Amino acid sequence: VLKVASMSESHVEELARPAYARWRAARLPIVPTILAAPGQIELHLTAAAQSAEEAAAALETAARDLVGAIGNRVFTTDGETLEEVTGRLLRAHGKTIAVAESCTGGLLLSRLTDVPGSSDYVLGGVVAYSNALKVDLLGVPRELLDAHGAVSEPVGVAMADGIRARNRADIGVGITGIAGPGGGTPDKPAGTVVIALSAEGGAQVRTYHFRGGRQAVKFWATQMAMDQVRRRLLGAQP
Amino acid sequence: VLKVASMSESHVEELARPAYARWRAARLPIVPTILAAPGQIELHLTAAAQSAEEAAAALETAARDLVGAIGNRVFTTDGETLEEVTGRLLRAHGKTIAVAESCTGGLLLSRLTDVPGSSDYVLGGVVAYSNALKVDLLGVPRELLDAHGAVSEPVGVAMADGIRARNRADIGVGITGIAGPGGGTPDKPAGTVVIALSAEGGAQVRTYHFRGGRQAVKFWATQMAMDQVRRRLLGAQP
Repeated sequence: VLKVASMSESHVEELARPAYARWRAARLPIVPTILAAPGQIELHLTAAAQSAEEAAAALETAARDLVGAIGNRVFTTDGETLEEVTGRLLRAHGKTIAVAESCTGGLLLSRLTDVPGSSDYVLGGVVAYSNALKVDLLGVPRELLDAHGAVSEPVGVAMADGIRARNRADIGVGITGIAGPGGGTPDKPAGTVVIALSAEGGAQVRTYHFRGGRQAVKFWATQMAMDQVRRRLLGAQP
Repeated sequence: VLKVASMSESHVEELARPAYARWRAARLPIVPTILAAPGQIELHLTAAAQSAEEAAAALETAARDLVGAIGNRVFTTDGETLEEVTGRLLRAHGKTIAVAESCTGGLLLSRLTDVPGSSDYVLGGVVAYSNALKVDLLGVPRELLDAHGAVSEPVGVAMADGIRARNRADIGVGITGIAGPGGGTPDKPAGTVVIALSAEGGAQVRTYHFRGGRQAVKFWATQMAMDQVRRRLLGAQP
């Protein structure tokens, strides 16, 4: 099972299609199935072969081929969760992380700390629903909130920078958005989420528009945040 | 379905048994089943009757009888989650809440904010894994940490008091413990969790010993914390 967090099903399908054609031409006994799971696209590969060894070899070839086609958006080829992969990379790079969450309400911190031993690299974080807490606990400038609103890229970056500085962490993540179902506006509908990452070398920020209910929006936002951290650690371009 | 968060299965069973005997004597057509679900004991009642009305009446009688026997440890008789029930009570009492979490890593905040509209009463909180953050963000006195250790009732209370003061919240919750599997000591094994509540009228604190894996310990701790808040609110005048 290959998992991809930050691409649409149709985009994954499009990149995978030439690989499928190659497998057919090479008579590789692989049946691929694409599945849109919550927060990620999964490519399930099944091999039908005479022996277990032959099947394993075909699966390995196919998996390598797909990773070649899709690139580092594939976060696992062996069923790991995104929090496990992200945690493993943080540990391998010797980096610590701190998180400032608004609309995800602590879900990112909770998922990161579901991994045993995560206290080695997760320093902690802040859940700041109110603007007052964003100012008091994260040092977000009041003028920024007034000028751009709480759900804005400048505020997301200020949250990421603030929590990073406050915790003396290598990486800071800031998430601000509207989980819904209420609270949306015409220009910032429910499901709008800003995710920012602060690290040596500069901040990066992106605004997403997630669909689905409150819990789906929260989950997707934590997936995208972890994938942003993961790819930054891999050295990929944002 | 009746749900009970803070009692053992055998204790619930013991309190329910006289009710079962009464139903048999009164020929109430109810079949009860007890189920130990993650973080709660569930009593499932099934009625076999001639008509839907008769069944509904029997179920209502049985549910009322069980609530009478078990008391306010029953947090719902209609399938609500503990975060929904706790949120409804906070709203009804016009109280706000803030949370300081260590071993639960944000799960309590995330669960509380799974409820739509929860931003009305959840102000936010802090996830402080390290002692440094407990001191810096929550104002836990360094001497307390040195004297009692991070996983101790005085530190739990200081976290609850600190987050409540910091957020100017009506209720503060502090959770500190060892989610495991690592990190335990002979006198504080993995699964040891201190849960403190700070509110007008004084703090309360209790130490639990949960069994199970890391995620089970995290979940149980959030259940007990919410149930503590729920029962405190029930004991208060609205």
